[in-house]
Amino acid sequence: MSSTPLLPVLLSTMILLSAVSTTTTALTQDFCVANLPLGADTPSGYQCRPAATVTAADFYSGALARPGILIRPFNTSLASAFVRQYPAVNGLGISASRVDILPGGVVPLHTHPAGSELLYVLDGALVAGFISSSDNKVYYKEVSKGGMFVFPQGLLHFQYNTGDTTAVAFAAYSSSNPGLQILDYALFANNLPTSYVVKGTFLAEAEVRRLKSKFGGSG
Amino acid sequence: MSSTPLLPVLLSTMILLSAVSTTTTALTQDFCVANLPLGADTPSGYQCRPAATVTAADFYSGALARPGILIRPFNTSLASAFVRQYPAVNGLGISASRVDILPGGVVPLHTHPAGSELLYVLDGALVAGFISSSDNKVYYKEVSKGGMFVFPQGLLHFQYNTGDTTAVAFAAYSSSNPGLQILDYALFANNLPTSYVVKGTFLAEAEVRRLKSKFGGSG
Amino acid sequence: MSSTPLLPVLLSTMILLSAVSTTTTALTQDFCVANLPLGADTPSGYQCRPAATVTAADFYSGALARPGILIRPFNTSLASAFVRQYPAVNGLGISASRVDILPGGVVPLHTHPAGSELLYVLDGALVAGFISSSDNKVYYKEVSKGGMFVFPQGLLHFQYNTGDTTAVAFAAYSSSNPGLQILDYALFANNLPTSYVVKGTFLAEAEVRRLKSKFGGSG
Amino acid sequence: MSSTPLLPVLLSTMILLSAVSTTTTALTQDFCVANLPLGADTPSGYQCRPAATVTAADFYSGALARPGILIRPFNTSLASAFVRQYPAVNGLGISASRVDILPGGVVPLHTHPAGSELLYVLDGALVAGFISSSDNKVYYKEVSKGGMFVFPQGLLHFQYNTGDTTAVAFAAYSSSNPGLQILDYALFANNLPTSYVVKGTFLAEAEVRRLKSKFGGSG
Amino acid sequence: MSSTPLLPVLLSTMILLSAVSTTTTALTQDFCVANLPLGADTPSGYQCRPAATVTAADFYSGALARPGILIRPFNTSLASAFVRQYPAVNGLGISASRVDILPGGVVPLHTHPAGSELLYVLDGALVAGFISSSDNKVYYKEVSKGGMFVFPQGLLHFQYNTGDTTAVAFAAYSSSNPGLQILDYALFANNLPTSYVVKGTFLAEAEVRRLKSKFGGSG
Amino acid sequence: MSSTPLLPVLLSTMILLSAVSTTTTALTQDFCVANLPLGADTPSGYQCRPAATVTAADFYSGALARPGILIRPFNTSLASAFVRQYPAVNGLGISASRVDILPGGVVPLHTHPAGSELLYVLDGALVAGFISSSDNKVYYKEVSKGGMFVFPQGLLHFQYNTGDTTAVAFAAYSSSNPGLQILDYALFANNLPTSYVVKGTFLAEAEVRRLKSKFGGSG
Repeated sequence: MSSTPLLPVLLSTMILLSAVSTTTTALTQDFCVANLPLGADTPSGYQCRPAATVTAADFYSGALARPGILIRPFNTSLASAFVRQYPAVNGLGISASRVDILPGGVVPLHTHPAGSELLYVLDGALVAGFISSSDNKVYYKEVSKGGMFVFPQGLLHFQYNTGDTTAVAFAAYSSSNPGLQILDYALFANNLPTSYVVKGTFLAEAEVRRLKSKFGGSG
Repeated sequence: MSSTPLLPVLLSTMILLSAVSTTTTALTQDFCVANLPLGADTPSGYQCRPAATVTAADFYSGALARPGILIRPFNTSLASAFVRQYPAVNGLGISASRVDILPGGVVPLHTHPAGSELLYVLDGALVAGFISSSDNKVYYKEVSKGGMFVFPQGLLHFQYNTGDTTAVAFAAYSSSNPGLQILDYALFANNLPTSYVVKGTFLAEAEVRRLKSKFGGSG
Repeated sequence: MSSTPLLPVLLSTMILLSAVSTTTTALTQDFCVANLPLGADTPSGYQCRPAATVTAADFYSGALARPGILIRPFNTSLASAFVRQYPAVNGLGISASRVDILPGGVVPLHTHPAGSELLYVLDGALVAGFISSSDNKVYYKEVSKGGMFVFPQGLLHFQYNTGDTTAVAFAAYSSSNPGLQILDYALFANNLPTSYVVKGTFLAEAEVRRLKSKFGGSG
Repeated sequence: MSSTPLLPVLLSTMILLSAVSTTTTALTQDFCVANLPLGADTPSGYQCRPAATVTAADFYSGALARPGILIRPFNTSLASAFVRQYPAVNGLGISASRVDILPGGVVPLHTHPAGSELLYVLDGALVAGFISSSDNKVYYKEVSKGGMFVFPQGLLHFQYNTGDTTAVAFAAYSSSNPGLQILDYALFANNLPTSYVVKGTFLAEAEVRRLKSKFGGSG
Repeated sequence: MSSTPLLPVLLSTMILLSAVSTTTTALTQDFCVANLPLGADTPSGYQCRPAATVTAADFYSGALARPGILIRPFNTSLASAFVRQYPAVNGLGISASRVDILPGGVVPLHTHPAGSELLYVLDGALVAGFISSSDNKVYYKEVSKGGMFVFPQGLLHFQYNTGDTTAVAFAAYSSSNPGLQILDYALFANNLPTSYVVKGTFLAEAEVRRLKSKFGGSG
Repeated sequence: MSSTPLLPVLLSTMILLSAVSTTTTALTQDFCVANLPLGADTPSGYQCRPAATVTAADFYSGALARPGILIRPFNTSLASAFVRQYPAVNGLGISASRVDILPGGVVPLHTHPAGSELLYVLDGALVAGFISSSDNKVYYKEVSKGGMFVFPQGLLHFQYNTGDTTAVAFAAYSSSNPGLQILDYALFANNLPTSYVVKGTFLAEAEVRRLKSKFGGSG
């Protein structure tokens, strides 16, 4: 058998076949690293960067190597590696974040509108829970180092550090862009009129005003 | 050309081919009416009823012909035609509900974890709005008879009747089972400990207790 | 606890993280309002408009507030709110239309190649039906005001007004772009050669020519 | 390095882990051969047969080795290998059929409600075409041995043998169960009332009666 | 009833409705022929060409009418009609290829990362097989002219000609771009360091060097 | 406003509506914990356990709290939390595993046929890489504690510990059941005939026999 390299032969075949469609773009669908500066988002994700510009470094991210910036009222640091921070996950149906919850700190009630979350506790312990929509039943449990808890898509959930040391957790999502809707921000950190918040929650108006002030909202 | 009926011939062909797999089950995948009493739910929906038991009546529903039962604190009647109430939509990616909002009434803040909603106003007028997750921006608008508003999947949204007559609306969903998580019920109508609600929302404890009492919660 | 607004802090975090990918495009995937004038369609829908240009008005549509233009031979008015007429439904898996069927009028046999349909009768009554593909069985039923009927994806179906008053119905679809193939238009309103129509339907040639003339076809 | 077989070690690991969920069912999701006699259909396909009962023979099918039974009015033989005839394709998103069209024969106008079709001509030549839904434009072309034509999902299409020899073609579908709705059968081979066919097609009543007689319909 | 052509009337309706979104782009989602020279790939496939530029010829391909170029070490010719060679399959979930295996020739072990394969033997005979991931069980069988074999997505599989005549087969895939990872090329036809190949396979270093030489690799 | 509990009222509404379909099964589609002992697998995952039997403990898993059993030739411990080990992830599109790679140890070349992988390094450092299918290009990089690397679905990839301390990593997958095909096991740990392995890989027969002996294969 000949020891002639085969790759060039196959590539020639491909070039010939490609000639049918007169294109010079490389096939990139092993992956589709998001072309963020171009900004062309679609319902299935961002346009792909040309394959020739992609290197191994694109598949790496150090975004979760350290805690994110501390959010004081929560006593929690949050760092995200969604498609905007980690373009290589575009189209791959996965992304991640990291939370560092100080003693007494919380990840308050929130939802991910477009993904389920699998949380793996790296250090310390926390109470993880979610509320089902069908019957408002609450499912919660203490999870310590090495434990996991899964939160189904779109449901209100929380993580509380009830211990004495910082709890650190890695969260993976079933979407490259799961979204994050923090309840307090949605209600109190924007210009939604106070009367509308009251109507939509049955909270007392004074309480709404107090929390709007706390979270930077107006109206 | 012969006037011999052709259908029997084709059916014979199919029967012969089917013999390969020795089965007598009818092909039902034009539709998959949910076999609810059997209760065999899967991630894609319920098992299908045998096609031979399905009639035209299965594709019909009168569930939204009249207002649902009045929910007093909301001054709103809600009737749903999700897969549990309307088994024919199983697997078809669509379902519906109807709201009748009395003057001053509300559909309070809620999410559908698994579907987008398209609301068509049948009578009266209402203010419809949702809150985006990325920047907590609020999008709301008055919608009167004949108008539509679309709420993207999983986001907090509301409908308020700010007029003098009952507002009636038909809502369609992009799922046969979109779910419904009403914020007040999730927070206050279950046994989630008061201290956990406080941690997760930064509401004052007294306010949490007041609303737990109002919505039937404990803990 | 400080009353310092938190939102700016979180936004700072996000800006820092975003710096990794040096982009200024806003995250828009809570929704993806179609960028129609740009025209960049993909298999999953249109490119998204920049989030900064989107307002509450985009989520509203008045396209179904009144009957569409009357199609005389059908005695029916049709108005559509698919993604082309209602760009906000892009990527959300839902859209709608409205039919006003005069007494004796019809929505003739047609299919939606890419979506199931849930029809809610707003006024009057009609006969709704579809034909299954597996065994050509017909499922039809009279549906009056407040009733619903669901048509599974891709199957031939119809709505006939057999009463004395105009029947009005709102239809929701499980796709932002379900398509609409009206049988008579497909067969008789184009330049498909008469001999091909005859071959494909076994209709008499004279009948094909009569209907081509009626529906504006040639060939 | 030891030559100890590793497989038993890994299997032990798996058995230990499996013990967490106390189950003895084998993981089958490399494939999901349809458990047809059980008949448990779901929106995503049939239940899987236990993996231990699956052999290489299940992945084989001879269903398309010869022409199907001749359908006389069409002068065409049709053989299908959808999930009912070829259970191994369950869940794999692919299936196939074979047509043998005698000279002058046709595959008349039909749709596949749930799949696109890629047709490869094995022998002879045929005219293949489809009608788009958006503007009723017709796309057709002669395809001879070795040529392919692709028909987008859900659209009316046809294949005619306009030559002197039998045309043979292999068709692949993008679904394990694409469905098949033959227009003439849908209109004329069932008990859909003649008056309803007339309303839905604008065909002359006599023509409808003639074709109902030809295709075995009643009513 | 008037014989006035109806199509212009409906088109007028559409134009009026379209005016809402001030666009002149044609609705193309009956199909989405890939706009390859533009090169705008997304996770769901390429951007669509403007519908006005699409003709029947786009849906045709002659790419599999003849054997592809011979790959000498395999004694096999391979021709592909994936989306790059056959832009009309973009978004349709289907594509195809053709193999011509000379006596003694092989399609060596390979995977399609993004699609299942249904193989139909056009001439001669071959042994087709795949290896399951859950238990490494091998499923293989001789398949002769007219026979089919299905290979589940992502699993290592092969086709060997063990007969005296050329085996020809048509393969359909459940994706417009299933990918093709040939094991020997992945291991030996690139610059993956020899030490890495040894680590990842436990092959002897000399064997790795021999095959790197054979298949054109370096490192 | 009355302080009457509202939940019972809404539940009454639901019970009344449910009566239409005469069923007593609870709606479980907020989640679908796999009913593994029943064994009813489908293409979309396992049947759901009745919601009434599900508790918070089901959403927790300790399967990755400690290293799995050591696989000696690899010098690596592997523990998995796929749907079989962690039934709560059924239908949620996510799962996880943990690898502990001793100094000099490897996770040899393997694929996940049904999912992408996002690897987060918990301790030590490793070289992570994958091979693209389109051009056999290799992408690899050293990743140390806190770093991530993403492997696109279905492609051959590896992780090597090239350091002096144990490397520990948590891997998340975009599927509840991504599968795992280890190349050496697929080739050498089963009864695939030696001659077939030689044909499919071009390895020398002696080398195949050596590795079959090492990994416990026969034939």
